[in-house]
Amino acid sequence: MAANDAGDTMPKPMFETAALVGTGVIGRSWSRVFVRGGCRVRLYDPDPEQAKRALRWFHEDVALDVREGLVTKDDEALWRDRVSAHADLREALTGAGYVQESGPERLDLKRAIYQTMDAAAEPDAILASSTSALDVNEFADRVKGGWRCITAHPVNPPHIVPLVEIQSSRVTKPEVQQKTVEFLAHCGQKPVVLKRYINGFLLNRIQAAVVREAFHLAESGVADAEAIDSVIKDGLALRWAFIGNFGANHLNAPEGIGQYFGRYADAYRSMIGDLNNEPPAFEKDMMSRIAREIGMGENEEDVKRMSQWRDRMIVRLKALKKDHPRP
Amino acid sequence: MAANDAGDTMPKPMFETAALVGTGVIGRSWSRVFVRGGCRVRLYDPDPEQAKRALRWFHEDVALDVREGLVTKDDEALWRDRVSAHADLREALTGAGYVQESGPERLDLKRAIYQTMDAAAEPDAILASSTSALDVNEFADRVKGGWRCITAHPVNPPHIVPLVEIQSSRVTKPEVQQKTVEFLAHCGQKPVVLKRYINGFLLNRIQAAVVREAFHLAESGVADAEAIDSVIKDGLALRWAFIGNFGANHLNAPEGIGQYFGRYADAYRSMIGDLNNEPPAFEKDMMSRIAREIGMGENEEDVKRMSQWRDRMIVRLKALKKDHPRP
Repeated sequence: MAANDAGDTMPKPMFETAALVGTGVIGRSWSRVFVRGGCRVRLYDPDPEQAKRALRWFHEDVALDVREGLVTKDDEALWRDRVSAHADLREALTGAGYVQESGPERLDLKRAIYQTMDAAAEPDAILASSTSALDVNEFADRVKGGWRCITAHPVNPPHIVPLVEIQSSRVTKPEVQQKTVEFLAHCGQKPVVLKRYINGFLLNRIQAAVVREAFHLAESGVADAEAIDSVIKDGLALRWAFIGNFGANHLNAPEGIGQYFGRYADAYRSMIGDLNNEPPAFEKDMMSRIAREIGMGENEEDVKRMSQWRDRMIVRLKALKKDHPRP
Repeated sequence: MAANDAGDTMPKPMFETAALVGTGVIGRSWSRVFVRGGCRVRLYDPDPEQAKRALRWFHEDVALDVREGLVTKDDEALWRDRVSAHADLREALTGAGYVQESGPERLDLKRAIYQTMDAAAEPDAILASSTSALDVNEFADRVKGGWRCITAHPVNPPHIVPLVEIQSSRVTKPEVQQKTVEFLAHCGQKPVVLKRYINGFLLNRIQAAVVREAFHLAESGVADAEAIDSVIKDGLALRWAFIGNFGANHLNAPEGIGQYFGRYADAYRSMIGDLNNEPPAFEKDMMSRIAREIGMGENEEDVKRMSQWRDRMIVRLKALKKDHPRP
């Protein structure tokens, strides 16, 4: 059984130890995922101060959750000694059956770090990448251990949002994909498999489709940004959070999705023909107007406060979904 | 204070009586919205049997919510005598300060029903339309009381999903829009104002943008339909349900949306350039494949069971949001 943030007993880990290479905002969040899965977690960053900061963040963030009643004191105590920062890559990878790399999105750097990791890691360790932009084939091909390289692209922040996009390369062994999927599910994540590379993978493409139309509506002056966000948070996303897009289509007609689009295909063709296909201008003035209209300040304090609220709400929503599974 | 489904005390109604013209799936659901707002509700349908069925549905649906603990016995008893079916339009509109029309989406029929309603309604009554497709200008212009005609387009089902899209015509009085917004908010809905007509309004356009890309991803074989839905329900929509699209963009960088798109505008331009701009083929085989992959049967029983679960989950999610408002 997978553990969760609400203080379940520690599950037997699939891997005794997991290592993180690159401990920025995404990397450090993975530490909470793997600890939740029962692992010891070893942090490495080319900048040793960054790894230490990630370790401090881990302790502070867990403490915050203890105060909110989302993590028990017992789990906090148990986790305290399970996460460590290391200044040396080889030392960090020692004993790690699973390595999650969250470095810069540059192919030359990715190739270099994969060569280094492949040489330093345990012989059977899986080398997973958090990349959101690169095709795993481009760096797995270049290393001897290409068979153990895989993409496991999370959503920010991974310890809050469970989805992970998995892409194997041409040379990745099927067992590596299978173990990665099992391990991430065991840690409470929701891995989904891409059958091949596509620019932006699934999640960022769907997000881009919404960004494109949302900006179009705001820029064309048909409604203000808060109204457009409200359409999502008080309308579409209330259904999507439980049943996704196809599920929402399916439940919109008494006999399901075939009947629904049998009735409304023409309306969709008409609307789709009318959607804007160009990217937004992304002008600074428009950004300030949007921030003002949605009532969120463009400063670190406001963003942090609002993000903490968002994260707590998502944890509560996940608990709700867990308590009332789909029939 | 607005009432909710969790058994708050009955609020003082803004309108003593509301009338429904057209009592299909959308129309009948409005009866629960207006009863929640403290109104008596009078149902009319050109087919008197349809109005009687809507009344039966009202009682059954409230009874179901009582069993689920979502509505109190007291509210059920209070509501029992507040909803009535009428075979005569003039009789149904008697005393109604607010009329919600949910008839067929054909302009000729809409114009005809608005002429009839305008002649039969109380002199000050608001005549709101549930239309999702027509421009209110096209039918408000043709009636004497055009000043009191307005669009109030709900999401299915309105008593579960709060969003309502409001569009005034050129001749609609500003007070009519203001009162409509206030009344719907008072009934627990979330009205948002469109400044002018646009094909599909806001909600269906954003839904169409997602439908277009979701079908493209499924049809291109990059992932199965369940993976694509999972990207939404276990990823994007967990954030969207609380902060919408712009809010999600804003919280993706420490200093907000300007900084976020300052960093990622090029990545968005690249993805948007790669999205499919054509409507899906909407082929029957594809629909069956999607239904199979998301594990939902194309039959009334399955759709009904799943819809009931979805509705209960949305009610719980709304309660969660109400209990923990945005800071």
